[in-house]
Amino acid sequence: MHPKILILLSCCAMVTALPAAAASPQAEVRKWRQANERQILQDFSTMLAMPNVATTLPDVETNATAISALLAKRGFRTQLLRAAPGTPPSIYAERLTPGAKRTVVFYAHYDGQPINQKGWLSPPFTPTLRTAPPASAPVGDLASIKGPIDPDWRIYARSAGDDKAPIQAMISALDALKASGIAPTVNIKLLYEGEEEQGSPNFPKIVAQNLALLRGDLLIFGDGPMHQSGRQQINGGNRGITSFAATVYGPNKPLHDGHYGSWAPSPAVMIADFVMSLRDDAGHIKISGFYDDVAPVTAAEKAALAAMPPVEPELKTALGLGRTIGPPRLADGYLSPTLNVRAIHAGDDGPNAANAIATEASASVDFRLTPGQTPARVKALTEAYLTRQGWFIVRDTPDAATRLAHPKVLRLNWDDGGAVATMTRLDTPAAVAVAGSIGRTTGEDVIKLPIMGGSSAFAEIVDQLKVPMVGVSIANYDDNQHARNENLRIGNLWDGIEVYAGLLADLTW
Amino acid sequence: MHPKILILLSCCAMVTALPAAAASPQAEVRKWRQANERQILQDFSTMLAMPNVATTLPDVETNATAISALLAKRGFRTQLLRAAPGTPPSIYAERLTPGAKRTVVFYAHYDGQPINQKGWLSPPFTPTLRTAPPASAPVGDLASIKGPIDPDWRIYARSAGDDKAPIQAMISALDALKASGIAPTVNIKLLYEGEEEQGSPNFPKIVAQNLALLRGDLLIFGDGPMHQSGRQQINGGNRGITSFAATVYGPNKPLHDGHYGSWAPSPAVMIADFVMSLRDDAGHIKISGFYDDVAPVTAAEKAALAAMPPVEPELKTALGLGRTIGPPRLADGYLSPTLNVRAIHAGDDGPNAANAIATEASASVDFRLTPGQTPARVKALTEAYLTRQGWFIVRDTPDAATRLAHPKVLRLNWDDGGAVATMTRLDTPAAVAVAGSIGRTTGEDVIKLPIMGGSSAFAEIVDQLKVPMVGVSIANYDDNQHARNENLRIGNLWDGIEVYAGLLADLTW
Repeated sequence: MHPKILILLSCCAMVTALPAAAASPQAEVRKWRQANERQILQDFSTMLAMPNVATTLPDVETNATAISALLAKRGFRTQLLRAAPGTPPSIYAERLTPGAKRTVVFYAHYDGQPINQKGWLSPPFTPTLRTAPPASAPVGDLASIKGPIDPDWRIYARSAGDDKAPIQAMISALDALKASGIAPTVNIKLLYEGEEEQGSPNFPKIVAQNLALLRGDLLIFGDGPMHQSGRQQINGGNRGITSFAATVYGPNKPLHDGHYGSWAPSPAVMIADFVMSLRDDAGHIKISGFYDDVAPVTAAEKAALAAMPPVEPELKTALGLGRTIGPPRLADGYLSPTLNVRAIHAGDDGPNAANAIATEASASVDFRLTPGQTPARVKALTEAYLTRQGWFIVRDTPDAATRLAHPKVLRLNWDDGGAVATMTRLDTPAAVAVAGSIGRTTGEDVIKLPIMGGSSAFAEIVDQLKVPMVGVSIANYDDNQHARNENLRIGNLWDGIEVYAGLLADLTW
Repeated sequence: MHPKILILLSCCAMVTALPAAAASPQAEVRKWRQANERQILQDFSTMLAMPNVATTLPDVETNATAISALLAKRGFRTQLLRAAPGTPPSIYAERLTPGAKRTVVFYAHYDGQPINQKGWLSPPFTPTLRTAPPASAPVGDLASIKGPIDPDWRIYARSAGDDKAPIQAMISALDALKASGIAPTVNIKLLYEGEEEQGSPNFPKIVAQNLALLRGDLLIFGDGPMHQSGRQQINGGNRGITSFAATVYGPNKPLHDGHYGSWAPSPAVMIADFVMSLRDDAGHIKISGFYDDVAPVTAAEKAALAAMPPVEPELKTALGLGRTIGPPRLADGYLSPTLNVRAIHAGDDGPNAANAIATEASASVDFRLTPGQTPARVKALTEAYLTRQGWFIVRDTPDAATRLAHPKVLRLNWDDGGAVATMTRLDTPAAVAVAGSIGRTTGEDVIKLPIMGGSSAFAEIVDQLKVPMVGVSIANYDDNQHARNENLRIGNLWDGIEVYAGLLADLTW
């Protein structure tokens, strides 16, 4: 038997494990996609060509109107939800399926990050097909391309990955199912946010005002990149976050460090000491009691983590790292909290370097929190610890009397908008159903990441909706999200269409 | 008896301890100065009005010519010494005293620091009389001032303190002695450098080329500020210096700290760890063997340090310090080495803050060295220690292979132009003579500082000249040298004239 046929059979063997294997929705969808690749990319380019920087409200509105129209054309009842006049709208779109018992809410966002980074290969709102990086050569207009479209090509544009990809995947999946005569098995609710990239200031209010509208049995969170291996992955949520800016103080004017260096405290050393009192080089957090609230890792989570494909050796090389810290497996660290030092600044260097003791020094720190931890508790533990370390904590620039009265003054300002972690256990029936659907689509086991390393203001949303949430990402991990030259791998869009079509057509629990 | 007369008598009582007390040169000089205050300030203003930023050679040349002319008018044979054509000249001026056995070389520099700091109260080359800080109100033109000139007033201009003050003091002292018919007791050699503020790149060569010309029995170093108490002080030299810039490396591109923070090393933490491995918050240097070469403090030095007026409580308050580190007495730290962290930088904060792991982080460090230490030995000790701490040291930005091959890569670049300490013991006869002369001028014991906290490239000069060197400063300690609003307290100029006249007229050993 020819080896290729053997592989094909082996694939089919997995698919035939399903009922109605011969007419699987996934196979029909793939056929439709293969016949319509140029049109799909044309539609996606049209969507990406709309400027969508989150802080430019008129552009955001244009996107909301256009995307709503695309959904209305596909039989959805659409509505723009706003917390208040003059704030960015979220798109709500609903299409009920006669006889469906389950309702699935799909979340994505259509606004984008700023575009003022230098070094874009093509303008961020001129979607451009290119070969895979690092060559990233333009491949010409869609109309001019002869032969098949290479799935490793990329489409370069702001929001190609983050986060218009799942919106296009959903629209194309709906078209594919319709063309194939396949009816969804669930009621579909779409919630596409318009201000995620500016930190969702109004979004929780929008959700709170529309709880009945948004009710469902499962929330599929369609933001964020896929696993580095390129294999389909689901996740149970995000770690929480809280962060602060710290400033420590030395003399009230810069001092000659020859004359005063052995006598006047050095803010540069104080800030280094401050940082090293919080965590060590290996990542261990030294704040007393910090790990007490961390939920223990379950056997299921351990098994899921152990089953993740090993990407670490390649990643270490790709990132130029001579070592790693913490657990050897990247995702094993996600069920622990992390303290990150975003910045430290003290004194001048380079052309402005001076043999001087600076008047102050600063650091910026964020904490990634696990289930069980809260920003309030982390703040309390951190401040109690720092106080025991001799710091006198203030919230504003200390006046002269305060600086004189206390040996070590620390200005500590916690950022607003911290978030607790949100985590749906992946043995929840809805999550098991999602994993099963994607597995049937791709023909291989889905990677189950108990929680993402990053954070999301979404915890509050999930808390309001009281619904299991499963993250399904389709963007390639190297999509340069938030940076210049954001891009989506074309093959990821193809796979995303199949995954979404599968979720619509064969999700049952 | 009228109280004022009592004070006057009490002053005279101290002066009468000297031989020929009635006609003391100091008293004659004071009388002359009091009669010529406006003219002295006018002359000083003319000198300060000449722009003299060290890196602007034509301006430096203008100063050299003008100051040489002032000295030639006072009977000096003058000469501009250059290491090579097109380099800044040092002014050499010589006036021999018939019958004198001793030759004293007076050093100062006439070039100045850059002036591009913001916040000058008046332009740096528009010398302006002002009341004492913090009011610093202009008091009007010299011609318009009625009544006496307040010695607490200041003259604001670049180089008012650092370092044209001793040049004006010398010129006025010469004029005062001439007007009073008092002959100097020593041969006078003046050496006024023109490139001190750019680090004296050519000056050692100038000295090496003119050793015979510069031969003398004593070098009086007239740079730097006085003791904070305002009492006259001599010093035996300067600590040495060496310094480096350090860079540590993390991933080769910024990483999302939620996804990678528990796994990728953090350059921000690495640089803090690096700094804290070098010294602690209290100033103790942790580099193994670092203190082994430090010359022990002698009993005479201890006694001199103990006799220094206590300025620490006032200074602590003035500088807004809630604590000090190291020895309680400021100058007690000068006979130990100091490690200063000039700068630490990692990541972005403020509006550019990102939840990111930076690719690298940097620190800038200087060491102040005591007699017995050398830059070469400090470099060797530091690098051996850092290597034992696991750092792989490179001199250039490491390539990808180097970063992959070593867990902790450290780029370490030592600055050129380090210096060893130079220290003349203040029980040397020439130094004893200087202390005696100044004591007779001021009527009180001079403060004897074994060594200054700062550093100077002058070690090499002293080494070449093989001559005892004593530092005599006249500028107020709060003269804002190197900064905006540099100024000289008028009373300090008056005192400086008397001190210099005394050194010329009654120095014997």
